[in-house]
Amino acid sequence: MAGTFIAVEGGEGAGKTTQLACMREYLERAGRRVVLTREPGGTALGEDIRDLLLGHRHQGMASATETLLMFAARAEHLARVVRPALAAGYWVLCDRFTDATYAYQGGGRGVSLDKIAVLESWVQEGLRPDLILLFDLPVEIGLARAGRRGATDRFEREERAFFERVRTVYLDRARQEPDRYRIVDADRPIAAVKAGVEAILADWLERRDG
Amino acid sequence: MAGTFIAVEGGEGAGKTTQLACMREYLERAGRRVVLTREPGGTALGEDIRDLLLGHRHQGMASATETLLMFAARAEHLARVVRPALAAGYWVLCDRFTDATYAYQGGGRGVSLDKIAVLESWVQEGLRPDLILLFDLPVEIGLARAGRRGATDRFEREERAFFERVRTVYLDRARQEPDRYRIVDADRPIAAVKAGVEAILADWLERRDG
Repeated sequence: MAGTFIAVEGGEGAGKTTQLACMREYLERAGRRVVLTREPGGTALGEDIRDLLLGHRHQGMASATETLLMFAARAEHLARVVRPALAAGYWVLCDRFTDATYAYQGGGRGVSLDKIAVLESWVQEGLRPDLILLFDLPVEIGLARAGRRGATDRFEREERAFFERVRTVYLDRARQEPDRYRIVDADRPIAAVKAGVEAILADWLERRDG
Repeated sequence: MAGTFIAVEGGEGAGKTTQLACMREYLERAGRRVVLTREPGGTALGEDIRDLLLGHRHQGMASATETLLMFAARAEHLARVVRPALAAGYWVLCDRFTDATYAYQGGGRGVSLDKIAVLESWVQEGLRPDLILLFDLPVEIGLARAGRRGATDRFEREERAFFERVRTVYLDRARQEPDRYRIVDADRPIAAVKAGVEAILADWLERRDG
């Protein structure tokens, strides 16, 4: 049986990393084989591209360039990691995927969503996550949490209005397609978020197996 | 007056670098301001992308990834170098441009030419070189010349059939649009090629000014 492709999305400080580790554990306890990966990155070349994107060496990169680099890393990640893992029956948990491009390069930078859709179709040829968990919380709270972590990357230096636009695009997309998206209220204690996420996974496992 | 955009194309060992230096000198003697640049590269970020593309660290990169990286470097190059220079009236001489993507990623790697056209339009939004000089010579002679240079990059390690396909796509494109392309027989002594190139430039200057 082909695997399941789950993307985990959300703004800064939404707690994705912690919850991804819990999700992996939960699914493995349920007897599933799991690949935990991330974008941009997930391959040696993708991680090099990630360094170009998140580092501070290339300030003022054109937003078209940024968008194309995101999809270049994605093309490599799909070819080398995601498609082979799904074909082998793994559950692929991906820390950010194409929704992040719509949210950050589209909402944040102002690249047209239609232009992003052209690249999505060019690169993915119909492959999309089966399920997308959007960890949502007010921008101010997320930024305060992310700030506690110390060093910031090139995106984390953006202004608050940027992240408001990111959040808006994320929520718009999730609301347009409720079958594929689950909005998780991330403005709660970790244990409560974890319980919510596990309920979503339990439901998904039941649907797939039932 | 807006500048002139000239791309110089050709396979391995075609003598592009030598002739580009001569072209710059010729145009500057004719009173033109010239920017000499190259792809992939031409910006700090573009040169970092070039390293990913030509280095040996990422063997077996997916051809979709390679194509997207070429266009990412191109987007940055257009935004930072080519468009501003043309707007300021410079003659832009570019060592390889989008024809090289059709030839290497399309002809060489087998990416569909239609898919490349989608990215060309996404990135360039109608901007194309005014004039393209294709330095053509038999693959065997070009490879023998390139081999003399010593260290080879990731492309120069390809097999002869790869370069035959590259040459075919280059020639097909040049023949389809004779107004914009000039095929330069590069299988001649440097001085003869230089004289041929200068005749093309003289003709172009006369057309523009006349």
